[in-house]
This record gives sequence, C-alpha cells and structure tokens, in this order.
Amino acid sequence: MAHRVPRFITDFFVYETAKSVVVKSWSVGIINRVVQLLIILYFICWVFMHEKGHQQRDTGIESAVMSKVKGLGKFNNRVMDVADYVVPSQGGSSFSVITSMVITANQTQGRCPETDPKFKCTTDDECMAKLGSNLGNGIITGTCLNNNNETTGWCEIEGWCPAEDDTVSGKPMKEVENFTIFVKNSIRFPLFNVTRGNFPSSLNQSYIQSCHYDSVDDPFCPIFKVGDILRHINQSFDSITDKGGEIGININWKCNLDYNVMYCNPNYFFTRLDAAFKNSAASKGYNFRFAKYYQSEDGTEHRTLHKAKAIRFEIIVSGNAGKFSTVPFLINLVAAFTSVGLATVFCDIILLNFHKGADEYKAKKFEEVPEFPDVSM
Amino acid sequence: MAHRVPRFITDFFVYETAKSVVVKSWSVGIINRVVQLLIILYFICWVFMHEKGHQQRDTGIESAVMSKVKGLGKFNNRVMDVADYVVPSQGGSSFSVITSMVITANQTQGRCPETDPKFKCTTDDECMAKLGSNLGNGIITGTCLNNNNETTGWCEIEGWCPAEDDTVSGKPMKEVENFTIFVKNSIRFPLFNVTRGNFPSSLNQSYIQSCHYDSVDDPFCPIFKVGDILRHINQSFDSITDKGGEIGININWKCNLDYNVMYCNPNYFFTRLDAAFKNSAASKGYNFRFAKYYQSEDGTEHRTLHKAKAIRFEIIVSGNAGKFSTVPFLINLVAAFTSVGLATVFCDIILLNFHKGADEYKAKKFEEVPEFPDVSM
Amino acid sequence: MAHRVPRFITDFFVYETAKSVVVKSWSVGIINRVVQLLIILYFICWVFMHEKGHQQRDTGIESAVMSKVKGLGKFNNRVMDVADYVVPSQGGSSFSVITSMVITANQTQGRCPETDPKFKCTTDDECMAKLGSNLGNGIITGTCLNNNNETTGWCEIEGWCPAEDDTVSGKPMKEVENFTIFVKNSIRFPLFNVTRGNFPSSLNQSYIQSCHYDSVDDPFCPIFKVGDILRHINQSFDSITDKGGEIGININWKCNLDYNVMYCNPNYFFTRLDAAFKNSAASKGYNFRFAKYYQSEDGTEHRTLHKAKAIRFEIIVSGNAGKFSTVPFLINLVAAFTSVGLATVFCDIILLNFHKGADEYKAKKFEEVPEFPDVSM
Repeated sequence: MAHRVPRFITDFFVYETAKSVVVKSWSVGIINRVVQLLIILYFICWVFMHEKGHQQRDTGIESAVMSKVKGLGKFNNRVMDVADYVVPSQGGSSFSVITSMVITANQTQGRCPETDPKFKCTTDDECMAKLGSNLGNGIITGTCLNNNNETTGWCEIEGWCPAEDDTVSGKPMKEVENFTIFVKNSIRFPLFNVTRGNFPSSLNQSYIQSCHYDSVDDPFCPIFKVGDILRHINQSFDSITDKGGEIGININWKCNLDYNVMYCNPNYFFTRLDAAFKNSAASKGYNFRFAKYYQSEDGTEHRTLHKAKAIRFEIIVSGNAGKFSTVPFLINLVAAFTSVGLATVFCDIILLNFHKGADEYKAKKFEEVPEFPDVSM
Repeated sequence: MAHRVPRFITDFFVYETAKSVVVKSWSVGIINRVVQLLIILYFICWVFMHEKGHQQRDTGIESAVMSKVKGLGKFNNRVMDVADYVVPSQGGSSFSVITSMVITANQTQGRCPETDPKFKCTTDDECMAKLGSNLGNGIITGTCLNNNNETTGWCEIEGWCPAEDDTVSGKPMKEVENFTIFVKNSIRFPLFNVTRGNFPSSLNQSYIQSCHYDSVDDPFCPIFKVGDILRHINQSFDSITDKGGEIGININWKCNLDYNVMYCNPNYFFTRLDAAFKNSAASKGYNFRFAKYYQSEDGTEHRTLHKAKAIRFEIIVSGNAGKFSTVPFLINLVAAFTSVGLATVFCDIILLNFHKGADEYKAKKFEEVPEFPDVSM
Repeated sequence: MAHRVPRFITDFFVYETAKSVVVKSWSVGIINRVVQLLIILYFICWVFMHEKGHQQRDTGIESAVMSKVKGLGKFNNRVMDVADYVVPSQGGSSFSVITSMVITANQTQGRCPETDPKFKCTTDDECMAKLGSNLGNGIITGTCLNNNNETTGWCEIEGWCPAEDDTVSGKPMKEVENFTIFVKNSIRFPLFNVTRGNFPSSLNQSYIQSCHYDSVDDPFCPIFKVGDILRHINQSFDSITDKGGEIGININWKCNLDYNVMYCNPNYFFTRLDAAFKNSAASKGYNFRFAKYYQSEDGTEHRTLHKAKAIRFEIIVSGNAGKFSTVPFLINLVAAFTSVGLATVFCDIILLNFHKGADEYKAKKFEEVPEFPDVSM
C-alpha cells in the first residue's frame, strides 16, 4: 500500500501523541488529583455558577418609562393638583414634584432696584463695577438707587420688575409625603429579543388602585409612596424639602434567561442622587425658575416668576440578561481544561526538587539528545 | 566552553520539548485529522465569522436625537398645529402627540361637587370616610352636596372648580395618521471615535421634503408617517387613540468597522412599547394632564385644565460596533489551537481502549518509573 | 499494600506527566527563550497593562444630571432671563438656550392668507392642488386670496391667524456667549457600587461661584461658559446662531478602581452634535415652535407663536470602570501560559527542518510504534 500512496499523504495521516512518564507514587498521585479537583471546583463554583461564564450577556437594555403622580396638597392656601406641581407634565422618566415656591407676581419689563445683598451700594461707582454681572435678576444699569437719604441702597437693574426676593419662602407642601408615583416600565433585551413589563398582567385593577410598593409584602406593586421612598433612603421630609433634592428610583432587571422568562422581574431600589454632593459647601439641593405669562387687555405682557424648590425623581432603568452561548462557554471550558493541566506543572516541581526519587524521575522524564553537533555546552 | 559558562546559564538555555509517539495507522490518523478539521471549522465559521470573536465590541453608543413633527389637524372645530399638539415642544427623543383632550375651562380655586362616581354620597359621613383620598379632583371637605332633595349627591371638594368630568371626550384628531416625524440622529462610538448621522449628506433637499420612510424603497429617508408606523406594528389608529399609547421608534446601529465606515447605517424598527401591558386590566394607555393659566384684569387667576390622550413616541437608539482587536483575537485563537489539541485526547481514548493494537500502543506511550522509592503500589 | 487497595484506585492515583526531550543547543535554546520572552512581554505590556485584561469592566454607568444656566441677555429690546430663554426650565441633561425668535403675536382661530412662497397662487385651482398639505401654517381651504387685482396672491388657510412669516427675524441675543452652564453630575457604577460626583466636596463656595472650566487650569470647575465651549469646538457664535445647533457636553468617566476611588474623576469634552449633517443640504440647524396662550376678558383665546432658533445642549455621560477580577485574569493568564508553550512549536519547526542535527533530533523526539497491526502504511 505504501507504494501506491505518496509519502506526504502517509506522513499527513500519521498520528502523533505525547509520550508520557507514569509515576506510581501515592504521595504525588494524591497531590496531583487534589490540585486538579481544586481547579475543577474553582471553575464549576466560581466561573460557571457564580460568574455565569457559560452565558452571553446583554447589557444594552432598552427601556421606556411612563410615570403618573397622584395627590393633592396645599401651598399658600391654594389647593395644588398634578397639573400645578408636576413639571414636566407628560409623565416620563424624569419629573419634578414642586414642594415650595417663591412667587413673584406681576413682573413687567422696566427698571427697579435689585434685591440680592450682593448688589447693595452707596454710590453709583459700586454698581458700575458690577456691570455685566450674570448673578443678578436683571442687567445692571450702573445707577445706585439710594432712596430718601438712607445710607445703603441697591443697584438699579433693567429687566423684569419688581425683582425676585427669594428670602421670602412659603412652608413646603407637607402633603407630598402622601403622594404616590405610579411607574410603568417596559424593557427589552435586544440580543435575546425578550420584552418584559414591570408588573404582571395578572395583577387586578382593584389591587393596583390601592397597593403601595413594599419590598417584602408588595414587591410587584408599581405604586410608590413618596414617604416610603424617603424612609428607604433614610431621609427626613424636612431635609429634602429644605433645599430640594434628587431621588433616583432604580429599576434593576437581572435576568437569567436559561430559566423561564416569567422569573425575569425587576428589583427596585432608591438612592438620593445628590448624595455625592452632600458635604459640598456649594450648590446644595435642587431648584429651578419658570414663569407664567399673561397679557393685559391693552396688549402689555406681564409674568409671574416662580422659583420652585422641588424633589426631582429620576427613574433609572438598568439591567443585564444572560443566556447560554457556545462562545463564552467554550472559552471558559478550554481555560478550565488547560488549567487542569497546570496541576502537572505543580507536581513536577515537587517531584523534581523535593522528592526522594527525584534523580530517578529526572532520568526518566528528560531524555537527552547527547552529542548534538551544534555546540556541546 | 562548558568550563567558562556557569552551569545555571547552560541549564537555562537548554531546549525542552515533549517527546512524541508516532502511530502509523490509517484509521487513527484519519479520525485525528477529521476531528481537528471539525474543530477548526467550528472556530472559523461560528466563533470568528458569526460571533466576530476577533473583534472588540463597543456597546456604549452615544446618541443625540432631534425630532420635528409636521401636520395640521382639527379637534373640536379648532385647527391644531405643532405648537398646540406636540408636548414638549423642543423636539427631543421623547415627545407626545395629543390626539384628543378633555378640556375643563375657567377653573378657579373654590369649592364644588366632585364628578367621579367614586365620590357619590347621600350623607356627610360617606364623605368624611373619604377624607385624605388622593383619587379625586380636589381635597375632600367631608360635606355631601345633596342638591334639591335628590337621593344621591356628590362629595364637596376644595380645589380647582368646576371639577373635571372626564367622561365627556371629543373625537380623536384623525389627521394624526398623516402627520410626519422627521428624525435627525447623530451617534458616536466612543471606543473607535466614529461619528455617523442617520441619513447621508448626499440626500438632496427636495427628496427629504417629500420622501416617507419605507424599509425597502426609502431605507435612508428620515421622515416617518404616523400611519405607516401604525401599520408596521399592526395597530389600528382607533386602537391606539382610544386610550392613548406609546410607540418606540428604534434606531439600531450595528456596524462592522473592519469595513468602510460608509456601510455603518442604521436600521429602523417600530414597537408598541406598552405591549407588555396589553393584557393588564389596570392602567391601559397613556394620558396626562396639563393646564394653561390665565389672569383676569382684576388679578384673579383661572386655568383651563387639559386631560390629553396622546401617542407618545420614544426614539430609542441602540447599537454596537465591532473592530478587529488583538486581545479578543488572541484569546479565541489560543482557544482554537488548544481545542485542536483536544483531538489527541479523543483519539487516545480510541487507541487505548477500542483498537486492536491497544496493548502495544500503551506500552509505547506510557513509560513507567519502575522501583519508585516512595511506595511501590 | 497493592493487595489491599483495589486496582482502579491505584490506577486513579497514578501520576502521568509528559516525557520530554532535552536538546543542549545554544542556538535553539536562545531562540526558544527569546520567543518566550516576546510572548510574555506582549501579555504584560499589551494585554494586562494597556488593555487591562485582568479587570472586570462595568460599562453600565448610571447617571443623573442637573444643570443650571445663568446669564442675562437682550432680544428685541427686552431683557431675557433664565425663565425666558431656557426650555425646558427644570434643568435636566438636555436643554435649549434660545438665541433668537420669530414672534407672531395675537393669533386667533380664523381664515387668512398663507405667507410661505410655496403657497403663492393666481387661481383657486392652484390652491385646490395643495389641499391636505402638511407644509403650511394652516389647513388649505382651496381659495386663492388675490387682493385688489394684484397678479399674485396667496392661498387661504384656516387656523391660527395671522400666519407666521418666518423671513423676519431679530438679531440673535449676543450675550449668550457669556452665559454660564453649571453642571452637577452624580454617577454610579452598579457592578462595583461606586458613587461619584463631578466635582470634589472640597471646592469652596466662592471658587464655585467665580470659576470657569478650563481643561488645564480649572479641570474640576463644573461651570462652563458658552463662549469657551464654542471655542473648544472651533465654532463661531455666528455660525451656530444663524440656524441654531446642537452641542454635546460629554462627561467621560474612565476609572481604574484598583486605585483609590478619589482618582475616579471625569473628563469633559465638547462636540457639535449635528456635525454629521454639516454637509447635508437639508434641515440644517435646530429650531422649534412653541406658543403662549392668553384669554381675553370675553373668553376668546389668542396666542403668541414663537419660532425659536436655539442652541441645544445635551449633557452626555459615558464611562466605564475596571477592577481586578479573577475570571478575566485567569482567562488571560491561561492564554498567556498556553501562548508561551507556542514557542516550542516555533523552535520544533526550526530544529526539524533547518538545523544540522535535524535527523538525530527527529529520531529522539519521535518514537515509532513499529509493527502496528492495523495497516503498515
């Protein structure tokens, strides 16, 4: 047969395998198997079971959030409803609930004195020095309004007059603690094309209209009471309404799609988002200004300026899903097999150096190519 | 030479390689090569070609979306334009198109009867039981307004009066189906610093002013007709305007940057975002309340409350890009080479157990270290 | 002992290791070590030091952004403050600063001529052909308003009248260049539970009130001057206010959490987001329409329509953090060890083919199983 088949083909189909040395030694044999066992256990428990090394992960979660606030409060003897205190009104993933406001009514374009202590003055020169400042309520004209021979006056501004005096502030609307936030969140893992909602369809209407989220008793209820959220993050109502603040409602989807998709449900947790700045001297809290514009019959425009302290809620959706996939599985499996082979490296070190039969073993393991024609060393 | 070079250096430069056993057997040789071929094919076709195992992936796509709605409709005999029905007006990635509204005009602060059937009453006690409720249009005062000796009345509320009666609703604005949404989306893959826009600069102005997106004929046209979107997701206009709804315009960028960046173009697809809740008894659809505030000449404020049913559009941008990178390539290549070696494991099992020459092969492959001084076993 | 212990147990604890061939050759030994050294260097420098192959990466950064614009400008002889020119007012991650407006005051529902040149006409037939157009300011009635025997007139529309004439535009508010944007960004890496703010708590109030961000001198100052941002992206104020535009303020968090978390600070950079469309003939710039609604004493509603050209700022937060983790470390380490073994493959090729002692080496390395009973080849 060899005469008919060309040499390079017979060479190609020759089977080569590593020659092994077998050592019949209890001590080394047991060490070898124990080390192999430890490596296998590490891979099974840590790499595969804990770190899910056999799964492909989808971290690019796509999410849509709808929110709806309910509740009625009183501020400055006026009843405030959703259309009054939620900004913006459309119910998205980020919205502010106004807790108190500084209201400056009937502003018209004109000239008037500043109200900020930074703009106190006695002479025009002091105001000239502040020309171009961005910190006031209007454009500094450079005149010091020094009424009736008083020692201190205020720089004159051009803009919406009278200027806002934000030292006067009403009591915060304490009913906010009882307000509820309904959250509808639908997500999708694009890699696995899995779509989920944050509460099961099986919840009936009367439950949804009366339940409040509780991590133990009502983990699927999508309605959050503001007071409960504040308790979760250990914040008193006064501490957050004093300056305003930002609260994150985190919806975390961690799904193992090797199981039934029914078990893919979110966890909620709450954070005070401006916590990173709590020790910062500057710029605590959260407030913003907005105006309502009116027109008189004669066509002149006036506005009511609102400086609103608010709690801003950010609904932050995160998550990742894992599902068995051959590529990461194979990479980790090959890594596991290769690592099991590393036990040999460890045992060889023992045998070659610390074992009674080291010399005999060395003689067997290493075979020299004796008179090598290159250099004899 | 050995006298001049220290022993540990000659030892260091000694070359060690595994001793091999060569088996000249057609059957085992062919099995070995076939198994190796299968492993190589798996890596080439699946790991490298399909899963792009040689590429580094950037999933942290950065995106900016600008949108513009165009169209004119009629609601309650009033012509509505963009400034009337798009909320918010700035044209971002999330916006609502109002399809119908319950308008409650001329609300002022005061006291008046509720309108919600939940607040029907015959005696004050029934209303006292509902004090503190968040579900009404105003703060329950505890009085039952029982007009003119009728048997049923309504609880009195304090707040914006008259209360909204949301059972009266106009016909939805049917022209919405013909509205168009223009989407400008620019993205960036930060890892590779690649910036792309969702339509090529080469599109000329007259085409952009007249085209409508179609996945086959006009895949690059960035203008979407609302009616076309509804057809894509198999929703009738009536089904979505009945309660309002949420529609996702997904822009998916999947780019292989090993090719010219010109081929990095988005795919569009559409989803009904509240589909996850379609079987849910509670809280179907999408609506929100907003108010327009007016001031009379005498300074009293009144408002017009709008409860708007709307289609909310969320433009969701996702994507990932891949580009050749040495680290994942090397990891997969090493995994491939190591896996090819696994063919030997398979063939050894055959040779050692199921082959006629098994004993002869065993004797050659395994060399015993005979009288090992540890334990003789 | 062998008599008491079953055979399969002694077999299990037998230690097998590869038999090696040792070649004492300077040339091959040095080549072997040099190749091994190159492989090790590659792994240390590239895989571990540059690509951080020993770290687990968290790319799912969670972020909350608060922004506040300050500054006063003049447009059409009116002083504009934050409540006038920032839309939306709540200070989120996406907001627009209006630089100029086309104001159409006192619009009421009715019929009036179009203003757009596309709707010029001489006969009613021309207007009938445009019925249903979405491009005008109102619903085309099909009548051509041909005043006083002039040769050209305009199609009549039904809607808000008078129609907007957007060819008249005021000068942009040039003070925008001096406006400042204060950005408060708090982030969290969910995998490592690390929370950071974009400026250190140690910054004192007076510094924060006066500083402006500069990449060299004030890298931690969270206040950005619009003019500085424009300079960073090489855009003149005129070029961006001409049509409006979009600017991205990118906050990039790249953190190595193997070091102290104190070193986890953001980098800022700026991009013109609509740059991808700069050569596009269609739809340059950024503008949007909004209306302010007024009510006369007699209850009729009128509105003031604003077409605002604006600079839209998008604060885009991205980032990833790495921290030592055993799984990626082990995968890369095993890949490294396996790759070092590849040096043998390279040296074997040299020894077997290009070395003087090739035949001798071959005889030693390969041991044949001679008379194999399968086929003799």
